Amino acid sequence: MKNDKQDTPITHVSAVQWEGSPETGRLRLLDQRQLPHEERWVTLTSSQDVADAIRDMIVRGAPAIGLAAAYGVVLAAQEQTKPLTADGLDHALTQLLASRPTAVNLQWAIDRLRTNVLQPSNPTVHALWQEADNIRTEDEAANAAMGAFGAALLPNNARILTHCNTGALATSGIGTALGVIRTAHAQQKLQHVYATETRPYLQGARLTMWELIKENIPATLITDSMASWLMQEGKVDAIFVGADRIAANGDTANKIGTYGLAISAAYHNIPFYVVAPTSTIDPRAPNKNAIPIEMRSAEEVVTLGGVRTAPQGIDALHPAFDVTPAELISAIVTDKQAFQAPYSFG
Amino acid sequence: MKNDKQDTPITHVSAVQWEGSPETGRLRLLDQRQLPHEERWVTLTSSQDVADAIRDMIVRGAPAIGLAAAYGVVLAAQEQTKPLTADGLDHALTQLLASRPTAVNLQWAIDRLRTNVLQPSNPTVHALWQEADNIRTEDEAANAAMGAFGAALLPNNARILTHCNTGALATSGIGTALGVIRTAHAQQKLQHVYATETRPYLQGARLTMWELIKENIPATLITDSMASWLMQEGKVDAIFVGADRIAANGDTANKIGTYGLAISAAYHNIPFYVVAPTSTIDPRAPNKNAIPIEMRSAEEVVTLGGVRTAPQGIDALHPAFDVTPAELISAIVTDKQAFQAPYSFG
Repeated sequence: MKNDKQDTPITHVSAVQWEGSPETGRLRLLDQRQLPHEERWVTLTSSQDVADAIRDMIVRGAPAIGLAAAYGVVLAAQEQTKPLTADGLDHALTQLLASRPTAVNLQWAIDRLRTNVLQPSNPTVHALWQEADNIRTEDEAANAAMGAFGAALLPNNARILTHCNTGALATSGIGTALGVIRTAHAQQKLQHVYATETRPYLQGARLTMWELIKENIPATLITDSMASWLMQEGKVDAIFVGADRIAANGDTANKIGTYGLAISAAYHNIPFYVVAPTSTIDPRAPNKNAIPIEMRSAEEVVTLGGVRTAPQGIDALHPAFDVTPAELISAIVTDKQAFQAPYSFG
Repeated sequence: MKNDKQDTPITHVSAVQWEGSPETGRLRLLDQRQLPHEERWVTLTSSQDVADAIRDMIVRGAPAIGLAAAYGVVLAAQEQTKPLTADGLDHALTQLLASRPTAVNLQWAIDRLRTNVLQPSNPTVHALWQEADNIRTEDEAANAAMGAFGAALLPNNARILTHCNTGALATSGIGTALGVIRTAHAQQKLQHVYATETRPYLQGARLTMWELIKENIPATLITDSMASWLMQEGKVDAIFVGADRIAANGDTANKIGTYGLAISAAYHNIPFYVVAPTSTIDPRAPNKNAIPIEMRSAEEVVTLGGVRTAPQGIDALHPAFDVTPAELISAIVTDKQAFQAPYSFG
């Protein structure tokens, strides 16, 4: 999975860390709600803690959510006094699954622990932890592969626009879309990154810009509303985004605002790429109609950085994701290959 | 200019008010930077004050800027000890003109005072004030006419999406795009309004929602990034926006984000309407290339109300406007008529 063309090492933070032995260790998360102002870590000791952390967005990003949930199952198993069984962990698994509805990696990670460890005979805490750790190392390798496949799609001196945060904070490695950016930067193919701030939660302003400035990658922040202007100005060669769930036909759920970027990219004939590990593909969802869209609290829309922005008593809407139809996606870059339309992931 | 179909009276605030006699009066502005939290008025006694207030966005909205600048000329004339001439006011006129570059109404209002009052012999402070007051009353009547022309384009139970603030706070009357919304509401043709928050300055969240809730018009706030999702959901029958400058071919400069909405509207086959008085049409600009786009401070992109939202030391961009090409505009509603493409304003 190494990219032998790279000129500088690719570095990244790790926001989801296991500390200690499988049987008595704890999960540490970099609290992403406090970034970029403060690097505060929280230590979680139960699966309930993990479900809360996912729902409250202490950890976010589809692959990172999947990994945190897997470690959450390990914490639930540590609490079991009776011999470990899937039934005995049922409450914890259900609670973790319910913490966020759109990212399919959550379901994928829990299904994997169930199928590979819990359903075969005599599961152990150590075996669960080992499977969670495998998810982590495989995701890290998948990030590196996606970075190489994605960077290969780019012209030299590429100017990339990206949305939300799809970096080390959202995964176990260099990231998905942001992993492509890191790889292109290491290959000296990258001229500039434009990051949308990504209202209402400001993952772009708070998290992506934080990662980019740490890596000295040349980047400029814009509001979501400026992306079409930037494309009209001829300053964007490609758009790279992540995904929270990809249907079997290629329809892609991702952070709210992705769909508008894809429409605008098509209008300007700019390639629009989705980058996600194969664990984000949901073979059970034939198309967009089968993807649930999480509606989050409208409170997140009427405040910005903790400051009230709108009058009291008004109505607001907060869909956390939208679905971009496959016809607007130039390629879907996974750890296996860059798929082209019409999409069939076999 | 009265709309005899209206069932309920159309009410609005007046954010630009002259207080006192022409010769000794003062300009009062509702400080739009403090809304929606506080209704604070500022009193201006010099044209320098007015230029500062326009640049600092105490007053904003193309028609309101034009009116404020006209009253600014009156204040400059009050200060003159020598007999009034256009030359004597030259410094004040230049300063007012330089306060914001994109809205053409500013230039239009000052040209009008120059042509109608200053260049003919023996101008007086009273005559300047009278011309400014004519601008105000004509704009009020133009708003009513645009409201009627625009509402006539709507189906019953219309669900309208709008961007930025184009209401009473931006004009002398009921507003441009928001005047259409007020008129449709009075005609009981309006089902719902969706207002984009309009980053970075949040005119939608702060000002449009403030006007709508005051008038009890049913409205929901969304972030700019949610507009395409809302269109995909089939919840938008038409988009109405204002304009800061319209070129002779119909290309329209308006608040940043307008262009992306127009692209998305075309993709969803939703009509996209621009509403502006004829004073916003710039016959000297043949097309978009002749419209200057104001680049404002990037500080407005990385902060809100003094709260930093992005890491320190990053780069950010802040184009205050974008230009929507005429081909994406279904009609341009003025006080004279609703023009259809290809645009020719005579």
